[in-house]
Amino acid sequence: MAGDGSDQRALQYEQTLMYGRYTQELGVYAKEEAARLRESGQRRSASDRSRTLDLLEYEKGRCAKCRIYTVRCQKFLISRVGEDWIFLILLGLVMALVSWVMDFCIAICLQAQKWMYGGLDSNVLLQYLAWVTYPVVLITFSAGFTQILAPQAVGSGIPEMKTILRGVVLKEYLTFKTFVAKVIGLTCALGSGMPLGKEGPFVHVASLCAALLSKFMSLFGGIYENESRNIEMLAAACAVGVGCCFAAPIGGVLFSIEVTSTFFAVRNYWRGFFAATFSAFIFRVLAVWNRDEETITALFKTNFRLDFPFDLQELPAFAVVGIASGFGGALFVYLNRLIVVFMRKQKAINKFLMKKRLLFPALVTLCISTLTFPPGFGQFMAGQLTQKETLQAFFDNLTWSKQGLAEEFDYMGHSQAWRHPQVSVFVVLVIFIIMKFWMSALATTLPVPCGAFMPVFLIGAAFGRLVGESMAAWFPDGIHSDGTIYPIVPGGYAVVGAAALSGAVTHTVSTAVIVFELTGQISHILPVMIAVILANAVAQSLQPSLYDSIIRIKKLPYLPELGWGHHEKYNIRVEDIMVRDVRYITLNCCYRDLHNVLLTGHLKTLALVESAESMILLGSIERSQLQSLLSQQLSRTRRLEYIRERSVAEKKRLSEVSNPSSEDSNMRASQEVRFQISTEESSLSPARPVSQKPLKPALKRSSVVERPIEIPTGPHDNSGIALKNLFCASRDTEGLEDDGDVEDDMTIREIAEWEEKQLDEQVNFNNCKIDPAPFQLVERTSLHKTHTIFSLLGLDHAYVTSIGRLIGVVSLKELRKAIEGSVTVKGVKVRPPLASFRDSGTTGTSSSESEATELHKLWDRHRSISLPREHVPSESDEKSQ
Amino acid sequence: MAGDGSDQRALQYEQTLMYGRYTQELGVYAKEEAARLRESGQRRSASDRSRTLDLLEYEKGRCAKCRIYTVRCQKFLISRVGEDWIFLILLGLVMALVSWVMDFCIAICLQAQKWMYGGLDSNVLLQYLAWVTYPVVLITFSAGFTQILAPQAVGSGIPEMKTILRGVVLKEYLTFKTFVAKVIGLTCALGSGMPLGKEGPFVHVASLCAALLSKFMSLFGGIYENESRNIEMLAAACAVGVGCCFAAPIGGVLFSIEVTSTFFAVRNYWRGFFAATFSAFIFRVLAVWNRDEETITALFKTNFRLDFPFDLQELPAFAVVGIASGFGGALFVYLNRLIVVFMRKQKAINKFLMKKRLLFPALVTLCISTLTFPPGFGQFMAGQLTQKETLQAFFDNLTWSKQGLAEEFDYMGHSQAWRHPQVSVFVVLVIFIIMKFWMSALATTLPVPCGAFMPVFLIGAAFGRLVGESMAAWFPDGIHSDGTIYPIVPGGYAVVGAAALSGAVTHTVSTAVIVFELTGQISHILPVMIAVILANAVAQSLQPSLYDSIIRIKKLPYLPELGWGHHEKYNIRVEDIMVRDVRYITLNCCYRDLHNVLLTGHLKTLALVESAESMILLGSIERSQLQSLLSQQLSRTRRLEYIRERSVAEKKRLSEVSNPSSEDSNMRASQEVRFQISTEESSLSPARPVSQKPLKPALKRSSVVERPIEIPTGPHDNSGIALKNLFCASRDTEGLEDDGDVEDDMTIREIAEWEEKQLDEQVNFNNCKIDPAPFQLVERTSLHKTHTIFSLLGLDHAYVTSIGRLIGVVSLKELRKAIEGSVTVKGVKVRPPLASFRDSGTTGTSSSESEATELHKLWDRHRSISLPREHVPSESDEKSQ
Repeated sequence: MAGDGSDQRALQYEQTLMYGRYTQELGVYAKEEAARLRESGQRRSASDRSRTLDLLEYEKGRCAKCRIYTVRCQKFLISRVGEDWIFLILLGLVMALVSWVMDFCIAICLQAQKWMYGGLDSNVLLQYLAWVTYPVVLITFSAGFTQILAPQAVGSGIPEMKTILRGVVLKEYLTFKTFVAKVIGLTCALGSGMPLGKEGPFVHVASLCAALLSKFMSLFGGIYENESRNIEMLAAACAVGVGCCFAAPIGGVLFSIEVTSTFFAVRNYWRGFFAATFSAFIFRVLAVWNRDEETITALFKTNFRLDFPFDLQELPAFAVVGIASGFGGALFVYLNRLIVVFMRKQKAINKFLMKKRLLFPALVTLCISTLTFPPGFGQFMAGQLTQKETLQAFFDNLTWSKQGLAEEFDYMGHSQAWRHPQVSVFVVLVIFIIMKFWMSALATTLPVPCGAFMPVFLIGAAFGRLVGESMAAWFPDGIHSDGTIYPIVPGGYAVVGAAALSGAVTHTVSTAVIVFELTGQISHILPVMIAVILANAVAQSLQPSLYDSIIRIKKLPYLPELGWGHHEKYNIRVEDIMVRDVRYITLNCCYRDLHNVLLTGHLKTLALVESAESMILLGSIERSQLQSLLSQQLSRTRRLEYIRERSVAEKKRLSEVSNPSSEDSNMRASQEVRFQISTEESSLSPARPVSQKPLKPALKRSSVVERPIEIPTGPHDNSGIALKNLFCASRDTEGLEDDGDVEDDMTIREIAEWEEKQLDEQVNFNNCKIDPAPFQLVERTSLHKTHTIFSLLGLDHAYVTSIGRLIGVVSLKELRKAIEGSVTVKGVKVRPPLASFRDSGTTGTSSSESEATELHKLWDRHRSISLPREHVPSESDEKSQ
Repeated sequence: MAGDGSDQRALQYEQTLMYGRYTQELGVYAKEEAARLRESGQRRSASDRSRTLDLLEYEKGRCAKCRIYTVRCQKFLISRVGEDWIFLILLGLVMALVSWVMDFCIAICLQAQKWMYGGLDSNVLLQYLAWVTYPVVLITFSAGFTQILAPQAVGSGIPEMKTILRGVVLKEYLTFKTFVAKVIGLTCALGSGMPLGKEGPFVHVASLCAALLSKFMSLFGGIYENESRNIEMLAAACAVGVGCCFAAPIGGVLFSIEVTSTFFAVRNYWRGFFAATFSAFIFRVLAVWNRDEETITALFKTNFRLDFPFDLQELPAFAVVGIASGFGGALFVYLNRLIVVFMRKQKAINKFLMKKRLLFPALVTLCISTLTFPPGFGQFMAGQLTQKETLQAFFDNLTWSKQGLAEEFDYMGHSQAWRHPQVSVFVVLVIFIIMKFWMSALATTLPVPCGAFMPVFLIGAAFGRLVGESMAAWFPDGIHSDGTIYPIVPGGYAVVGAAALSGAVTHTVSTAVIVFELTGQISHILPVMIAVILANAVAQSLQPSLYDSIIRIKKLPYLPELGWGHHEKYNIRVEDIMVRDVRYITLNCCYRDLHNVLLTGHLKTLALVESAESMILLGSIERSQLQSLLSQQLSRTRRLEYIRERSVAEKKRLSEVSNPSSEDSNMRASQEVRFQISTEESSLSPARPVSQKPLKPALKRSSVVERPIEIPTGPHDNSGIALKNLFCASRDTEGLEDDGDVEDDMTIREIAEWEEKQLDEQVNFNNCKIDPAPFQLVERTSLHKTHTIFSLLGLDHAYVTSIGRLIGVVSLKELRKAIEGSVTVKGVKVRPPLASFRDSGTTGTSSSESEATELHKLWDRHRSISLPREHVPSESDEKSQ
């Protein structure tokens, strides 16, 4: 039974969608699969054996049958652990708990601030100090904590998730450290009362949780390593994040789809719904159990009348709210970007702030909290209310402009805060909107874990309320003309405004659904939908979404969307953007060609063509495969063999060579450089540092590169010079190799000669994994279609062919350049989603040649550091024809 | 400005997503595009000229400026017509009108029946006759009308739309005739009061509307021919269909995505939302204008209490509703299929019913309406209520089992119908559920336009109500223990049951959203979500969805989904299912090979390999391209040229030939057959009928095939024997060709000899459109991955290669067989979505060779009739190596 289970689980691997890169990995994947099946077979037989042993032991006991049953049950349960729904339930449960505990802590933090502020009401200065110090301390702690533990936890996390779901691996974004930093940092940041949100970071937290949970569950079944499955689970996790943040399962699923996906597989729909519903359920049940609520209801429950929610003639007003929100949303995105860019540009300020990294958040917090100090300017913008209270006030049933008319007023409102003895409620609302607008845009640039959704939602609600109150003041008896008086409900406008502005900022329609689930009322569906659609139409034509804007600011490797307004882009063809100078290898090439090709380009895969004349594309080979071919050819083993052969033949000439070690070090310096400049056919030139250039870490934070590169000293370390020059990292391990049976007494010159000879031999591709069906385009494919194909299949490059002949290559980079000018990609490594899967497979299958594998690992590491797809254009190998 | 507009529109072509088949058409598409751009350039200059002419004319008038402005405005407006949002607004408007008018007519029909029934209350027999005759007449009319006008209008339409959106062209499903038949047939069918639904057909109606609207709008701009754009618009139309049927824009969009798509492009999201919202808005506004409603509210508005919608402890009961609905849904699908299959199998009944096509619907209607006759058995199942009334009764706030407890009862209920003097309300509900269950399953098999969603929704509501009433009877004071008494709301259970059962039958989660929008209350979100997810989990593991079931019954060409429970399918590889015997042509083949290949296979495209030895795949060529190559080679023009040459050389031998026409007809009979058996290298065998076999209409209803095939008689009709045998349809047009300058006096034997010679020449591929990058797989690709790729890219075949070498081909057929055993595809033609686009392009570009084009058209027609992808396996040309 357990065997069946593990089999089933193995097959579930397959069931998961290979979003990207299938064309390339097919060959690899197939061998991989075979290896895994073998392995699982072994595992199964092992488990069978252990089971029988167990049984034999239990047989000695009394009720053997009962125990057999127990064991079976246990096995069955363990086998079930691997199933999706268990994973999703666990994920939902954990996230609901995290969300609830976090909300609880935030509430305590906010209460503490109020208590301190309230307790010191004798002295305004002390009150001010308490009011200001508290958030400054919390934000500074949050910023410092995240900075020290995991700087990746800073910000929303949705842009990163979007990038990860696109197939790019941002490894450090899904670690336990990040999880801790994000959860604690977020709690502190929100507890400070700054205008920050929970939604964006929660999407990240849920993804972190899913990633950690799969790691944890792989301890039981060993089946959660599949990266494409993980991506599906991450997509579900995003839904859970939104779902349990707002107790909005449907809106959560839709929002996460809109925000993170380009193409969506409907068959994965249920995962999101299942997990998000369960999570939202648990989240709200916890509130019931904690006696906060009597039963499960909406988070910001509204109580508008059902029989006549709004009049038909109010629709233009709702439309105005939508259009204005569209402009506002675009402005918010623009302002946010402006602040970031400004902070970057101002070198003087920047230097000062960067030196004391915590000064900037402290200053911003000080500024914002000073302005909201209730006895000060805060009295004009309801400064004493928390976000939640403010939102509840906006959504209430009262009409503030002429208090006391609405009858259904039955819960404790916070609307008193909006009444000011001197100024009217309209002025207060306008001040609130303006102040909160720039405060939110500024606060979301702080280096703490924070989102912008909730602040924007709040501003939208305030704007809606403003319009609603104006309408109520304008039409005191409602618009409806036939008999019954239906007064205007400003709360309904607040709901519409909230959905519209948050929809405009995030470029989503599903904020409408979130708003329904959040308020527990769907009666305003048409106004909300109309306003959201109009807001989206306006905002999308003016600015990118907030998340896309952050992606651009952070320069994450992401394929930009083709917008509505970029029609001029559609008559670009692949032939206009493709790199014509493709690095290729021919079927009958020699190792020297291989070597040169490896040195000049940085593409992860290389095209294999029939011959330089025909240029017929036969397939693509991974760089690492070629490297291993080359290393085998120049390996110490082969050289030792050669020495052995030579020593048999020329035993006498051995004495002629004297003092090899001193000559050795001189020679190496010159030879090491030789292969670095390879395209100009091996000339002796400059000095040491040049040879180390390809090692320079493109990714600064990566810890892999930190290991010092030892300069070899021993005489035994002279194996594979050309190779080593290519991949310096491989040196130290090779130095540790056994040098037993035959003495490696070749001089450096001899080795060089031998290597020269080896390099002239023809390559034998027999043991090489070739992907026979790389993705191909034709030269007349439009940019639009190329974009579609790339995003559908998650490709990172495609060959351009013409009747079988290779004529060019297009990679994500070219595509991105063509779409948005030229954005350089820096700071993160781009790896295909199945890369780790493949890497582990490579080491697994080629275990016979342990040396090559060792090299391999190091190269893989090296490869993952250096930027792939960096293409140095040169005129040397243009296609013949 | 107009020029810019048309340019923009031309580019919008591109903007639309090429869902399927891009790899194949790239070459074609590119040339196509070029031709179109040229054309649009010409059009633009023409319009420029006309504008200036206009202006000159207007210059004579007084206020020239004003007129110029008017003209510009007009041009601008026309140029805007092509934009998506105009189209979507028009679509929404039209559909809302159709929906509203239809609802109006249905309401009148139902009122008429009630009036007749009520007016005759003196005599039960007369009453019965009136009650029964009315629906029988309506259903019979509906069945007859659809049968005569457009049999495609029968049934739901969602399965067909799913197939169409998958990329298969079912042309006759989107005609004006079908539209009329569907709308009128549906109105009559629903007006009869049978348990039939409006949703499914409405999806079809909306798609029809979209298709017709694009045709209509192409009159203005000439830009709506792009088929891939049409597919996007069809997807939006599906959303509109659901949206304006239930006034549920969000649910409509989600439902249509779940029901019709496999992969969904998020960037097309807004189209659906936009159109569906607009449509729902107009639909509800019409109700307000008609004074049916005071303002825009939900269709089946509920009025449950908001403060305490349900108790936590009721959730298990909701879960039970969900699970039971899952089983019920599966049973419904099974029952529906069983009835259809039974009706097909029973030859005796079938023959009788088929003879009088209208007898079956009449009998079924008679049976059902007899059972619902209110004074008869109908009294036990609330027979006098219409669907709408029943649903309103189920959703009301009363608790029937102990009338009068609920306080909020404020609208006219129909709950009186559920009280029977003798039996309890529980018995009535059980009888209602059981009777409606089989009635709905039976009624939805009637040959009228009808859907099953609404009946199922109703049964689900009844079941929920039953559980709710039971709960209310069990816990008269509610479950909640702390102080306040919250009685149980059976109406809430009805809502949950409705969503769960309809979700189970259709395998969708979005019925939850539909239910919220339909009732205007979202307070039961968690119970509904839990029940829907559980119902889906149960139903999906037992049966396919109703629409997939119908797809299988109708044998529509659709790729089945990979379900949850089919794990054993995932270790199948492409190499296990691929057809190894690929029809291919080599670069240096002669025309005879071409001819043979064309005769033996029916694949739409053929692989082009370098040589039979290397088998390196160079690309794929469309069948029609090869046919035109062959026709050119054997064309009358070339033969006449040959005759001319020969006549110059051998003028004297002309007199030897005598009486060619009598010999002609004899010879032809034998020769015609020769090429039919081709794989066995041309032997003379059987008789005439064999040669006509490939012509036999695979699609019975297609009107294209109806044209009689004339047997040629004239002596001039002997051109291209081999060709004609291949494509008999081309005969009569060729007979009409000019036979002017040179007299075609070759005997049939001479022609045959000449053709033999021609066939031995090597093929010149210069003028042939070759797709250089057909989609390739490797042999170890898993079935699951292949399925994903096929559905992602909408492929219908892919070549299997191994290091550039072609080793097999997989088509949809093999894939389908592998997934679900062996389902034969019959009854519809399968064409790629861009086929018509390409066809029109072919005729456009090859206008120089008018004969070839004529043939072309005929072949295209022929090709569209015969089943593509039919692969006759033979051992003749197995891959060498």
